[in-house]
Amino acid sequence: MNYFQQNRERCLEELKEFLRIPSISTLSEHKPDIRRAAEFVAAQLRKAGLNGVELIEGEGNPLVYGEWLGAAGKPTLLFYGHYDVQPPEPLNEWMSPPFEPTIRGDNIYARGAADDKGLTLILIKAIEGVMAMRGSLPLNVRFLIEGEEEVGGEHIESYVAKRPPRLQSDAAVICDTEMFAPELPTLCIGLRGIVYGELIVKGARQDLHSGIYGGAAPNPLMAIAEILCALKDRDGHIRIPGFCDRVRPPAAAERAAWARLPFDEEKYRMEEMGAQELTGEAEYPLFERLWARPTLEVHGVRGGFTGEGAKTVIPAQAVAKISTRLVPDQQPEEAIEQIRKAVAKTCPRGVTAEFRLIHGAAPSMVNPENRFLRAAARAMTEIFGNETVYIRSGGSIPIVGHFDKHLGIPSVMMGFGLPDDNLHAPNEKLYLPNFYRGMEAVARYLDIAADGS
Amino acid sequence: MNYFQQNRERCLEELKEFLRIPSISTLSEHKPDIRRAAEFVAAQLRKAGLNGVELIEGEGNPLVYGEWLGAAGKPTLLFYGHYDVQPPEPLNEWMSPPFEPTIRGDNIYARGAADDKGLTLILIKAIEGVMAMRGSLPLNVRFLIEGEEEVGGEHIESYVAKRPPRLQSDAAVICDTEMFAPELPTLCIGLRGIVYGELIVKGARQDLHSGIYGGAAPNPLMAIAEILCALKDRDGHIRIPGFCDRVRPPAAAERAAWARLPFDEEKYRMEEMGAQELTGEAEYPLFERLWARPTLEVHGVRGGFTGEGAKTVIPAQAVAKISTRLVPDQQPEEAIEQIRKAVAKTCPRGVTAEFRLIHGAAPSMVNPENRFLRAAARAMTEIFGNETVYIRSGGSIPIVGHFDKHLGIPSVMMGFGLPDDNLHAPNEKLYLPNFYRGMEAVARYLDIAADGS
Repeated sequence: MNYFQQNRERCLEELKEFLRIPSISTLSEHKPDIRRAAEFVAAQLRKAGLNGVELIEGEGNPLVYGEWLGAAGKPTLLFYGHYDVQPPEPLNEWMSPPFEPTIRGDNIYARGAADDKGLTLILIKAIEGVMAMRGSLPLNVRFLIEGEEEVGGEHIESYVAKRPPRLQSDAAVICDTEMFAPELPTLCIGLRGIVYGELIVKGARQDLHSGIYGGAAPNPLMAIAEILCALKDRDGHIRIPGFCDRVRPPAAAERAAWARLPFDEEKYRMEEMGAQELTGEAEYPLFERLWARPTLEVHGVRGGFTGEGAKTVIPAQAVAKISTRLVPDQQPEEAIEQIRKAVAKTCPRGVTAEFRLIHGAAPSMVNPENRFLRAAARAMTEIFGNETVYIRSGGSIPIVGHFDKHLGIPSVMMGFGLPDDNLHAPNEKLYLPNFYRGMEAVARYLDIAADGS
Repeated sequence: MNYFQQNRERCLEELKEFLRIPSISTLSEHKPDIRRAAEFVAAQLRKAGLNGVELIEGEGNPLVYGEWLGAAGKPTLLFYGHYDVQPPEPLNEWMSPPFEPTIRGDNIYARGAADDKGLTLILIKAIEGVMAMRGSLPLNVRFLIEGEEEVGGEHIESYVAKRPPRLQSDAAVICDTEMFAPELPTLCIGLRGIVYGELIVKGARQDLHSGIYGGAAPNPLMAIAEILCALKDRDGHIRIPGFCDRVRPPAAAERAAWARLPFDEEKYRMEEMGAQELTGEAEYPLFERLWARPTLEVHGVRGGFTGEGAKTVIPAQAVAKISTRLVPDQQPEEAIEQIRKAVAKTCPRGVTAEFRLIHGAAPSMVNPENRFLRAAARAMTEIFGNETVYIRSGGSIPIVGHFDKHLGIPSVMMGFGLPDDNLHAPNEKLYLPNFYRGMEAVARYLDIAADGS
């Protein structure tokens, strides 16, 4: 029995401790929890045996740094994770409280269980295990754990953009993605980018009574509906001029590999999503819609009255939270300009509309032939006992683009989440067997990556 | 100096006391305030010299009843007002707190100042004054003051529908409308009806991450936008099949009278509404759009995330509060059916949509040649010194329809509000000179109506 098997109970207790901290980065009242989570990570890094552990302060939430550089002549890996989480709302849909980690069956339920506290802790515990068993690592490692992944990660972006010497590495290892299926080791080689912002629509100077003014007053809520319908049609096609021009279709080989993935679309629709019907651009297969096509979504609409009962108000202003997902070779700056122009062009009369950016990130692709990716595939295949598959993710991990752009290193996206982990939703969970196998896979990876694959 | 002039200060203090009670009928946590407001009204009726004052309890908020039946052989008038108010949100747009009545210039600012506490108190104080000066009234009066006008008035409707003997009257006097201009006495002879409800749209079983599921997941917020745009076009035309078939155009004489009303459309747009442009069905003149055309408005959209920052959620469910205003000869029951069918027909794939009724009321018209209306016009002309004009209102006063249907009596809508009173909006106010002249006009009306006009 190795260190990982011997220490399961303790590792689980420490995961619970981490999950109890409501480190919600999008709500400013949780600043103290953000700091507690950062300090928890720092303590974990020290305990794992890393050196130079410190919080890197800046304009946003602290970054947590640590390193072990005792393997002269060997490659250096930069490990990335994040300690911030999404808000837990709607609270009434959680079967157990979001910040009281609860085990049911093989899963642990809590906000952040999979995204990304559980996965971040896998990385740290892998290092802790190897250090405990051997007193050293087979290669050099640096950790950079952030606290703003769910809100755009501005601090880490500006820090990475400075190209500080202590981030010099050969590859990044990012543990924030999922496996395609429970027993199927998976490397993610493509991510969608994102442009997230607010559509702000203003009508009259103040709220108006819909009886007295209805028929003459502009309604910003209706204007939002009109703009949204002008930007995207009922068949899922984005109608923003030029928006899809740069979309690069996946290569035939990649499409063929996707078609071979073990997948039951009916089960996905009914059990995982619980939806009546899958929607989107019907002329593209599902994985292409999810991984290689841009989307436009509305996440919430603020304005007017949404309480109990009836209020006959035409609001003076309304705001919609909207985002688009970008795919290679779309660029956020260009997309933002296209959105702005389309909003101005489709704005109905009587109101003003503007798009205010909250954050953006470029889409990214990594080459599966890179030695650090091949090493990861081998390590995972060994531990999970199945051939590693290559997929993309429809989500956005902006740091992958920053590591590429500023540090010139590829990112190995080795994830241990599962498709039904309910990320960003009620009842987020982590499949505990993956928590334990993840540690062993990362530990194995250190050896293989140290010697080239 | 008469009683009204002598007692201005005290009446104003009593109005303030009434306005301090946050009797918001749409929020259940204000139930105790609703009761306090009902008891305040009862105490005022007793003080005015009415008999048989009591709270009529039922399923909803109490009705307040009082009567004076000492004028044998004379007509009986049924006075109506309401003591409940709209919610005050958005609070940050109020220049003074909504439930701390504040006088600035000639106006008193508070939620309910004009709608309808100030106007209800005008009726009570008119009776109090005549009783104090003469010890009797020239005709018989009954008061029926309700506490659910802003939430559909179910209690008063079911009470009136029982046709209780103590409501037997010759006409109703409703003090819940406005004057066309500050010095222009006005009788309202037409009201729009309403159908208010929720458009409930359901997609997946739970909230989904827009990165992972965007491109395949149905988005109920987007579906709401699509349904709304299908129900009403950008030019303000309602596209619900059959909805406008029964709309009766105003008679040529009424249209001509509207065209003669003193009105500055630019001033209305810029100063009263503060809007860039008036909207709606461009082929109809403004007053026809406001008074004689149906509308469809969205009042708020609930679902997803609307807090600070970014959350990339596709909500499982979203709800839009919507209403339509109805005009003669539309009927709520038929309109509800038409809305339901149109919602089902325009619902996009992947979601379910249903319309849940909150309340409905029929539109209504009264004949200006009725003796009680002619008496009101004369009384107001005498007190205000200008010829009384006849207008309609775009709002809905469901009780007018109930009095007509169940008691067989016409309603005299004698209002003392002004167009810029900000009903249902921040900084609601009442023009104090109208508070005082209103009492005198109602007192004068008693004499004229007692003898026929």
